[in-house]
Amino acid sequence: MEIKPYFRKVNYYETDRMGIVHHSNYIRWFEEARDDFMRQLGVPYSKLEERGIIIPVLTVSATYRKHLTYEDDVKIQLHCKKFTGVKSYFEYEVFDMEGNLCVTGESSHCIVNKELKPFRFKKEFPDIYEIFAEAAEEGPKHW
Amino acid sequence: MEIKPYFRKVNYYETDRMGIVHHSNYIRWFEEARDDFMRQLGVPYSKLEERGIIIPVLTVSATYRKHLTYEDDVKIQLHCKKFTGVKSYFEYEVFDMEGNLCVTGESSHCIVNKELKPFRFKKEFPDIYEIFAEAAEEGPKHW
Amino acid sequence: MEIKPYFRKVNYYETDRMGIVHHSNYIRWFEEARDDFMRQLGVPYSKLEERGIIIPVLTVSATYRKHLTYEDDVKIQLHCKKFTGVKSYFEYEVFDMEGNLCVTGESSHCIVNKELKPFRFKKEFPDIYEIFAEAAEEGPKHW
Amino acid sequence: MEIKPYFRKVNYYETDRMGIVHHSNYIRWFEEARDDFMRQLGVPYSKLEERGIIIPVLTVSATYRKHLTYEDDVKIQLHCKKFTGVKSYFEYEVFDMEGNLCVTGESSHCIVNKELKPFRFKKEFPDIYEIFAEAAEEGPKHW
Repeated sequence: MEIKPYFRKVNYYETDRMGIVHHSNYIRWFEEARDDFMRQLGVPYSKLEERGIIIPVLTVSATYRKHLTYEDDVKIQLHCKKFTGVKSYFEYEVFDMEGNLCVTGESSHCIVNKELKPFRFKKEFPDIYEIFAEAAEEGPKHW
Repeated sequence: MEIKPYFRKVNYYETDRMGIVHHSNYIRWFEEARDDFMRQLGVPYSKLEERGIIIPVLTVSATYRKHLTYEDDVKIQLHCKKFTGVKSYFEYEVFDMEGNLCVTGESSHCIVNKELKPFRFKKEFPDIYEIFAEAAEEGPKHW
Repeated sequence: MEIKPYFRKVNYYETDRMGIVHHSNYIRWFEEARDDFMRQLGVPYSKLEERGIIIPVLTVSATYRKHLTYEDDVKIQLHCKKFTGVKSYFEYEVFDMEGNLCVTGESSHCIVNKELKPFRFKKEFPDIYEIFAEAAEEGPKHW
Repeated sequence: MEIKPYFRKVNYYETDRMGIVHHSNYIRWFEEARDDFMRQLGVPYSKLEERGIIIPVLTVSATYRKHLTYEDDVKIQLHCKKFTGVKSYFEYEVFDMEGNLCVTGESSHCIVNKELKPFRFKKEFPDIYEIFAEAAEEGPKHW
């Protein structure tokens, strides 16, 4: 399945007095892109939470190359690099509308239940497990 | 009991590209001042939540007179105008260090349980009820 | 000109530990709706800033009736109640997708130049003045 | 010079509906700790900006080990790992009050002028250059 990029526009309240997007907001946009990705897969994160699947962030990083500012249109391309059933790994590329790569980033996540404990994902939610495995560039489907 | 003003410094990420504090942040600072007020009363809001007392915002307003910016020291004076057992009403005054009144605001709140339903505050938590009544400028203590 | 409502989805980072949208975020969404309104009028605020027109917030208020939460779709209907050439006044209604009115709000703004001083809007920018006057429910066009 | 840790308390609006601090906020706290560090050095960043020294973020990363939540007291220990005159590198450790290491992070920054161009820091601002070199664990002072 082809994942479509996530588009959004920069809000005024996301800029800082340097006149550009405050760097912390890209971390939030990565989350928006992940949520959009899961909606595209047909498993919105709000539904996963309802079923007791929580996917907290373990690590996040960002590299800033070119600034974006107010009312810029932004395109975020997300790749699910790897899914192991216990963890998942994402990469992000943030582009402006001229196609310039502005920010890149990565995040890793664990997959836990409501008590924030690991559980047997494949056994308990085989349907969702399958969707995630299919969407990852590396993982059970590729071994 | 004399309520001490709440002090804080403006963070970089709270400014916008107008070079000043984004107006939405004052609404967050009002919350900080309320939380500080409750800590001064000896009833931190985190403890109230644990006991099942939730105090959501019903209305909030702010009037902007003078802007503040990065690294400014800010003093917030809060008044609990009224407490009825079911609702409470606050007023806020935000000053810079020269004593200029920069922003004023008001908020009103209902007092509910974890199911977001009203409950008999005075009967179920007489100790906390008493503290709130005592701290308000108008309310059961004044009738 | 018919102003279309502004739609957006609730982000995870906009919720708080009460499980719902933090009340301060609605103030930010009002700004998003204003920016969308100005884009619909053909005068994006980023372009106004470039031409030296700044529209700071003087007052803002919100009344919370029904909470919204993560991944809810939100519709915001904005009305420009009044435009005087010096000030403008907006009203906001935030709906969920079932059509329930969740939050209402108001804001007022002054219109100043880069030095944050008033200027003769009608004379200096007659084209933009005209657009704003036309879009307001009350103002020069109605007197 | 001994750099004192930076202390702050978790605000309600910094939590998300998982009940814990939203991960993006740690990136903002790293900034608060940097600003506090520069104030301790006697060179508040607002003063550097006034003198035309801008220190944008090039990269940032965080690793989440243990969550923090509302009203937790937080201690952030910052180390300036390296200063080259053109770039600076920081490390962060976020502790709870029991001394548990909750989050670690790193950031790197370039040092530019108002036009966001590199300049000869040592020559143009020898006093500030000296302070930064002195405070870094690695750099001109150590070569």
